[in-house]
Amino acid sequence: MKGFAMLGIGKTGWITKDKPACGPLDAVVRPIAIAPCTSDVHTVWEGAIGERSNLILGHEGVAEVVETGSMVKDFKKGDRVIIPAITPDWSAVESQEGYSTHSGGLLNGWKFSNSKDGVFGEFFHVNDADGNLAILPKGLDPCSATMLSDMVPTGVHGAELADVQFGDDVAVIGIGPVGLMAVAAAVLRGAARVFAVGSRAVCVDVAKKYGATDIVNYRDGGIVEQIMEMTGKKGVDRVIIAGGDVNTMIEAITILKPGGRVGNVNYLGAGDHVLIPRLEWGCGMSHKQIHCGLMPGGRRRMEKLAALLVTKRLDPSLMLTHRFHGLEAVEPALMLMKDKPRDLIKPVVLVDK
Amino acid sequence: MKGFAMLGIGKTGWITKDKPACGPLDAVVRPIAIAPCTSDVHTVWEGAIGERSNLILGHEGVAEVVETGSMVKDFKKGDRVIIPAITPDWSAVESQEGYSTHSGGLLNGWKFSNSKDGVFGEFFHVNDADGNLAILPKGLDPCSATMLSDMVPTGVHGAELADVQFGDDVAVIGIGPVGLMAVAAAVLRGAARVFAVGSRAVCVDVAKKYGATDIVNYRDGGIVEQIMEMTGKKGVDRVIIAGGDVNTMIEAITILKPGGRVGNVNYLGAGDHVLIPRLEWGCGMSHKQIHCGLMPGGRRRMEKLAALLVTKRLDPSLMLTHRFHGLEAVEPALMLMKDKPRDLIKPVVLVDK
Amino acid sequence: MKGFAMLGIGKTGWITKDKPACGPLDAVVRPIAIAPCTSDVHTVWEGAIGERSNLILGHEGVAEVVETGSMVKDFKKGDRVIIPAITPDWSAVESQEGYSTHSGGLLNGWKFSNSKDGVFGEFFHVNDADGNLAILPKGLDPCSATMLSDMVPTGVHGAELADVQFGDDVAVIGIGPVGLMAVAAAVLRGAARVFAVGSRAVCVDVAKKYGATDIVNYRDGGIVEQIMEMTGKKGVDRVIIAGGDVNTMIEAITILKPGGRVGNVNYLGAGDHVLIPRLEWGCGMSHKQIHCGLMPGGRRRMEKLAALLVTKRLDPSLMLTHRFHGLEAVEPALMLMKDKPRDLIKPVVLVDK
Amino acid sequence: MKGFAMLGIGKTGWITKDKPACGPLDAVVRPIAIAPCTSDVHTVWEGAIGERSNLILGHEGVAEVVETGSMVKDFKKGDRVIIPAITPDWSAVESQEGYSTHSGGLLNGWKFSNSKDGVFGEFFHVNDADGNLAILPKGLDPCSATMLSDMVPTGVHGAELADVQFGDDVAVIGIGPVGLMAVAAAVLRGAARVFAVGSRAVCVDVAKKYGATDIVNYRDGGIVEQIMEMTGKKGVDRVIIAGGDVNTMIEAITILKPGGRVGNVNYLGAGDHVLIPRLEWGCGMSHKQIHCGLMPGGRRRMEKLAALLVTKRLDPSLMLTHRFHGLEAVEPALMLMKDKPRDLIKPVVLVDK
Repeated sequence: MKGFAMLGIGKTGWITKDKPACGPLDAVVRPIAIAPCTSDVHTVWEGAIGERSNLILGHEGVAEVVETGSMVKDFKKGDRVIIPAITPDWSAVESQEGYSTHSGGLLNGWKFSNSKDGVFGEFFHVNDADGNLAILPKGLDPCSATMLSDMVPTGVHGAELADVQFGDDVAVIGIGPVGLMAVAAAVLRGAARVFAVGSRAVCVDVAKKYGATDIVNYRDGGIVEQIMEMTGKKGVDRVIIAGGDVNTMIEAITILKPGGRVGNVNYLGAGDHVLIPRLEWGCGMSHKQIHCGLMPGGRRRMEKLAALLVTKRLDPSLMLTHRFHGLEAVEPALMLMKDKPRDLIKPVVLVDK
Repeated sequence: MKGFAMLGIGKTGWITKDKPACGPLDAVVRPIAIAPCTSDVHTVWEGAIGERSNLILGHEGVAEVVETGSMVKDFKKGDRVIIPAITPDWSAVESQEGYSTHSGGLLNGWKFSNSKDGVFGEFFHVNDADGNLAILPKGLDPCSATMLSDMVPTGVHGAELADVQFGDDVAVIGIGPVGLMAVAAAVLRGAARVFAVGSRAVCVDVAKKYGATDIVNYRDGGIVEQIMEMTGKKGVDRVIIAGGDVNTMIEAITILKPGGRVGNVNYLGAGDHVLIPRLEWGCGMSHKQIHCGLMPGGRRRMEKLAALLVTKRLDPSLMLTHRFHGLEAVEPALMLMKDKPRDLIKPVVLVDK
Repeated sequence: MKGFAMLGIGKTGWITKDKPACGPLDAVVRPIAIAPCTSDVHTVWEGAIGERSNLILGHEGVAEVVETGSMVKDFKKGDRVIIPAITPDWSAVESQEGYSTHSGGLLNGWKFSNSKDGVFGEFFHVNDADGNLAILPKGLDPCSATMLSDMVPTGVHGAELADVQFGDDVAVIGIGPVGLMAVAAAVLRGAARVFAVGSRAVCVDVAKKYGATDIVNYRDGGIVEQIMEMTGKKGVDRVIIAGGDVNTMIEAITILKPGGRVGNVNYLGAGDHVLIPRLEWGCGMSHKQIHCGLMPGGRRRMEKLAALLVTKRLDPSLMLTHRFHGLEAVEPALMLMKDKPRDLIKPVVLVDK
Repeated sequence: MKGFAMLGIGKTGWITKDKPACGPLDAVVRPIAIAPCTSDVHTVWEGAIGERSNLILGHEGVAEVVETGSMVKDFKKGDRVIIPAITPDWSAVESQEGYSTHSGGLLNGWKFSNSKDGVFGEFFHVNDADGNLAILPKGLDPCSATMLSDMVPTGVHGAELADVQFGDDVAVIGIGPVGLMAVAAAVLRGAARVFAVGSRAVCVDVAKKYGATDIVNYRDGGIVEQIMEMTGKKGVDRVIIAGGDVNTMIEAITILKPGGRVGNVNYLGAGDHVLIPRLEWGCGMSHKQIHCGLMPGGRRRMEKLAALLVTKRLDPSLMLTHRFHGLEAVEPALMLMKDKPRDLIKPVVLVDK
């Protein structure tokens, strides 16, 4: 089979591999719709997770089951399924304590395009099919559903980590696709005002549609100054970080009220230390809590988030600015993510033409 | 001053009293808009809280500050304010532990039309003005805002007690005004399917507008059978009880999944025992958790819930089926609550004509 | 192999069966020490879980691994292991949501002596060895460690369900072995006063050693009256129910403060309804929360609770009033549980003589 | 009246002031026992909270009520009371949301020896007597009880912030009096192994008595290396920071497991930024959560923590290495804190000779 792969840091190309083997608990599937992610860009061109050679990329997709292992009970050939970016080992001690994302060690629940081939191939392998696949609900558009792999759960997790409560004022820093899902999730969690921090017009427009009440453009001045001004010097109850770098925490803590919480879902690819501003953190006495985490995946999570799409609580299709067709289109789609034109939020590739 | 009062169990009428005195921490206010509540009906005609004579009724309203005590810092004469039905003693040990509703003892945070005169008078008294008043946001309709006193916080508390999570299936039993706010709150908290249990057309219509996906009419069969059928025998993740009686818990526990939670916000006026079905509760082993509670009140709660109206996350005005004008209209408004015609959800009285 | 079995309701005896087969994820083990449980008595003589024929009894034990499946990674022949009474399917959707005890359905994590043969045989089968076994720490007495299967985690779960906080006053109703572990767990969780409700001298003595500050003997008067008297009419912050019947909840709710929590770990074997007293529950408004649940099991839980024994935070050996030797002694040990002599707390059988 | 005061940064001395006036909600008290705190040292000699002139120092003590305001209900002249270091405004919006420590703004619940005169005078003033005083239980030694003002609640809060669970491995960094109370609190919260990081023999000895299982002396090598070695490279479940500086977070995050939590109760007096190590924080994806906070105070907190002393769950007297008599002895006691001789843990001054 062929797949679109990272050949080495800075290099991509099509390669040929054997179709993956299916263990007794596993499934082999073929993609129906897939999407490239900014982290694929980080992986290839920034070497964010280190050297990899001939690793098929991609971790977002919906697929059709082609083969299942002998011990798989709930899925069969022909089932159309949602693929979570994170596919934990559910028996691991970390999963048993509620942190399946880290099953077997820090971030080890993340396998696709990291420790094994990803979804940009004619076929791909899914560990623990019963635990990690979810049926694609009938009538749900596969392209929208592809957002369930990573964008929706990551954005939603931002709102969970920040622990948004009814009537909270929430700042979302960064309004790429994850930040936009965080805006929508904060609203879905009961936020009152939502301050969306970003600058690109296409993202600002969708942020408003998802319920952002205030737009904070960092080109118009410091975001701390703007948000403190907008809140009458009070600051916000919650901050979701979905963009920026290791210095962004300084702004997040500064605009946060005592007792507030930061939820970071931004992958921090560079820098030695994430910086907490000492004084604004109340010299370590402020009850400004800092949470972070890679999205939880697995079957149940996919089922529950898919239900938000089915019931029309959430519509990720507003973010799908570019649609491609055919597996080979994953290459230009990824290049688009790399080049980030001003009208891009998220591309998607419908493999079945 | 005059006020509309409970003269004794089963009897109401207009009485004359002295304008209330204002303690150093308190405020005296005059109503701008007020609303009768089903619990006023229970109080008068069912004697739910026991005998009371010449007690001015009412605990829902927005008002204008007429006088403030010498130690009040944040409010002054002329301020337009939201009045929470529950006005706790914030220094009480129960408040310090997070249960201000029970400051000084079980349910003692509830003072209006219970342990002191309520809001259906020319003037009324508010304890701890700085802790219990909230400024009415500019531009917010006083009639809608009157729902912030009790209907909004009680419905919202149902979703909090049931601990609704993203993608949960939620049943709301009872869709009077509290149940309708619970439907809206469950959606605002991230629920996927919401099963609204009720029968009156006017309520069903508004329940759908608030996001109910499925209507369960108990006239069409048992609600357990209907909901189990609708969920493929799985049941729901959460149940909010906003109506019914001491037997309703039987149905709630039966339709609940293991690990699910019931949030009861329905005042149970009669019966010796609330019944938990032993087998469906897994013989006490099911992790089906049962939470209940009278709404938390106070200033901050009002500010945060008002922010949901200002940002248009929630619009309680859909429930305001009957509007009256002038303080004296509180009498026919209450009688309407008592008679409950089929087209009624909630009446409101704008005192300022 | 032979095993001590339930032949039918009311009948027990030794039977011969094939040694269990070992699936790819599983282990077959042989017991080192085992203990009968009151629930074995309920199962056989009260038919609590319905008819069973030729079902080997027992769900408490430590064992030696005899065989492991091909996919097992962390355990091997000869390992000495702790066996949790509850051995979940960790991939199940219920486990993914934090309720592994109910993996696959209400209480389905409970397999031994329920849906498959238990531990009272020459060999027994453990599903998902990597997920459900834990290494027996060196130096830990196997007889004490047998209490890790059920008594320790169930008692501990009582304190978790009741959510004991620093300085809380806690009542523990029932001081059989589970209640005694709940007393110890409440103390280990930061309780101040602990009211142990029971009557047998041997249990009262051990309750005091585990940190009970007040003994409430129901033979001396109503426990509600006694506890309200002892607390100056204030009641307690938490109640753990580890004994009694469907009426016990009446007392638990009555002695509980507003905002308090009941944690039930008592298996309720009879009665149609568990009764909540309406008035004392504040007419459904009291914030007196009711939690219940069968103990969570699995590997990580065993590892963490074993660490409490290793570090001498908890010593379950105080409860081991009767020690037997040899597999065949499980029969008199179980009969002792059935007859419950006054000097019994818990028997244990060391299989290796 | 006279009091021992900060005259300016670096200068202390005895001054004379008027006896404080008592507002309607307040109390004036005279000290029975008092203790200097490291933060008094920071305040005077490091100027940690900025310039202050003629500010009476001290925030730890038990006292006798001399006068109460007209609205005080629960306390009267002659009552012996515990004084919390933090005395919140309970009506403030921050208190209503559960963060009374920050009532009125970041850290504003801290008044003694900060925004008003402290407890090192012949008399001192307590705001909101009903909300902030607690009766000293009969039989409780006043010197031990003085530890309830700050040392006990701060240590306990460390265990709360770190969210210690049954069987957790916990590292406590810093074993001065706050760290020692954190060791005891972690044990009281159900920790298994407790790694106490410190070097002074007198503290190590008491740490062991409070239940530390492992001592980590930073003079023997890096604490990260030592703890990773001791835990078989796994790290710990929780870290309580009770000492160190802005770089200590680097070590705390490094030794923490994914899904673990840091609770910081160390006042960070210098440095621009608290440093989180990016890689060990999983690039912001680790679920290693960071909590911090100044101890909650107030009446109920004092009552509950005093109950731990009364029931002998906790004995802070092990830390009282130096005892003085008479108000004037507060000067040498403070100098001792400043000089920190090797045999010092905590001095206390019994004012009543």
